[in-house]
Amino acid sequence: MTDFPAVPPPDAEVAAAARARQNRLTKPPGSLGRLEDLSVWVASCQGACPPRQFQRPRVVVFAGDHGVVDAGVSAFPPEVTAQMVANFAAGGAAINVLAETAGASVRVVDIAVDVAEPLTPQIGAHRIRRGSGNIAVQDALSFDEAAAALDAGRRIADEEVDAGADLLIAGDMGIGNTTPATTLIAALTGAEPVAVVGRGTGIDDAGWARKTAAVRDALYRARNVTADPLALLRVCGGADLAAMAGFCAQAAVRRTPLLLDGVVVTAAALVADQLAPGSRMWWQAGHRSTEPAHTLALQRLELEPIVDLRMRLGEGTGAAVALPIVRAAVATLASMATFDEAGISS
Amino acid sequence: MTDFPAVPPPDAEVAAAARARQNRLTKPPGSLGRLEDLSVWVASCQGACPPRQFQRPRVVVFAGDHGVVDAGVSAFPPEVTAQMVANFAAGGAAINVLAETAGASVRVVDIAVDVAEPLTPQIGAHRIRRGSGNIAVQDALSFDEAAAALDAGRRIADEEVDAGADLLIAGDMGIGNTTPATTLIAALTGAEPVAVVGRGTGIDDAGWARKTAAVRDALYRARNVTADPLALLRVCGGADLAAMAGFCAQAAVRRTPLLLDGVVVTAAALVADQLAPGSRMWWQAGHRSTEPAHTLALQRLELEPIVDLRMRLGEGTGAAVALPIVRAAVATLASMATFDEAGISS
Repeated sequence: MTDFPAVPPPDAEVAAAARARQNRLTKPPGSLGRLEDLSVWVASCQGACPPRQFQRPRVVVFAGDHGVVDAGVSAFPPEVTAQMVANFAAGGAAINVLAETAGASVRVVDIAVDVAEPLTPQIGAHRIRRGSGNIAVQDALSFDEAAAALDAGRRIADEEVDAGADLLIAGDMGIGNTTPATTLIAALTGAEPVAVVGRGTGIDDAGWARKTAAVRDALYRARNVTADPLALLRVCGGADLAAMAGFCAQAAVRRTPLLLDGVVVTAAALVADQLAPGSRMWWQAGHRSTEPAHTLALQRLELEPIVDLRMRLGEGTGAAVALPIVRAAVATLASMATFDEAGISS
Repeated sequence: MTDFPAVPPPDAEVAAAARARQNRLTKPPGSLGRLEDLSVWVASCQGACPPRQFQRPRVVVFAGDHGVVDAGVSAFPPEVTAQMVANFAAGGAAINVLAETAGASVRVVDIAVDVAEPLTPQIGAHRIRRGSGNIAVQDALSFDEAAAALDAGRRIADEEVDAGADLLIAGDMGIGNTTPATTLIAALTGAEPVAVVGRGTGIDDAGWARKTAAVRDALYRARNVTADPLALLRVCGGADLAAMAGFCAQAAVRRTPLLLDGVVVTAAALVADQLAPGSRMWWQAGHRSTEPAHTLALQRLELEPIVDLRMRLGEGTGAAVALPIVRAAVATLASMATFDEAGISS
């Protein structure tokens, strides 16, 4: 299944009611700034004003390796992907700590880690293949794999929503994954590689030049498929990126608000909004990362990041740091007194 | 008591140890961006690495009226100050809701509300007078009142630290209070009133012109005391601003980290760093408000706001929204696994 149904926007009537209620709360209208906008968005996604505080926010980290690391595009060796999957499972990674602080739980899924066997059968339940192809010289995936990876992400979103998740966060883990992410964003926006390739986890100048060359080569290979989102994921994306795209789109189909993270998740989201137009109305941008392509993708999605803390880790960490602000927004609309209730002159 | 002891900086050795520990955690060095800086700051303030998560963050809202409202500088009538004190006490205001979301408690103090009696004896325990003078035409305070207000803020900080507060937030409530705040910032930075006067709670163009004229008149009256911080508070500040200045300085004296809020608190902090040089090392800027003078004061203090959400409410709300991000920073340094612990190739 690679077709998505039409995605209707969040409830406009509830949004209007939420905006009106914000204007009756005991503060000058508009003085809570972005918090007011976020509270209205949550209410409209839930179809309820006042909105309910999130009970089960859920982070899903999509892990996958990328053959393009052979081109020398990353500061870390590829075995780190599998080691970090174990770190997520043990609770020691940044996303574990930040999600717990924000009252969210974490699931890690091995979509295409380059190991013979997944860490556990559960983590590998949606596994597509062992690493994705080197997009500088070959397609990342076969036709069947691309469709299966997209569907895996969709099924993971369904599993989480069916289990009660009321806010989703997509995260990524994969050495080399900013290279296909940057390629997807460049392909969909027409940007020049030299203008949007970033330092990833921290490559030096020579590594940056190799990465830029890899993105350029992958873009050339993808030049005839830029209008076909699934083909883009197949030619110059990867199994993890396809799964994230399916996950982001399906969150919208299931009317569940989602916070985007950094450049990798947002690249997948940019593709997802092509697959299921209108999905972006169900998303907020958690943060702005230091990757140049991230800002470009957010502009194309017309999303304004909630925080800008010079983060560049991925894993969903930027979204997890923004989650308490979305919670704060919900709390104002749900719990503040109105002028009438407090007997205050307005 | 209007003299403060010298304020030593937070512990540099602990800061170095904290930075070194961040570099051993399971993520690329620097990839948590501002979170790493904030975690190092908290550790150095606490003198402990890893730092302890905050157990008792405390918001103190300083309420006071301002005679300058007679000049038509606010969109709200002055009786709202007392009404909002009751709203804080009842738990219905934005700061109540946002503090609770962030795991902080709230205290409101009536320093100079324009009512015959404070709402309760406890809220009025540090009360200085009934409203401060109209700074466009007269001094805000007498010599004795200015000294007493400064000392009140200092004693409030002592009370909170003695009661176990491990992070302080200063908040403000007072119709008209952005006028003396803007005057103080202009006096200490040499800025032109037209360049820094903002819309406060939402005045129209005519109100903005009246406010700018009031700031200009107050600045003229204060022209010979700009080098004397206590005199500035007396001539063109107010009792609440003097108390906030004493509070911010004493937090530093007591080695207790403090988050600044918007333009009113930051104006008081700018004066406090003159009274007790070095205090600013114990502060972080919670947010950037939409008031132009706020950005100017933050630049002078060399503080970078944690969030920028177009908020302009005061009460400590901008700092309360930033608190979960500081908590998240502490959590990374306190709880993430190191590369060695996780067995990850670095």
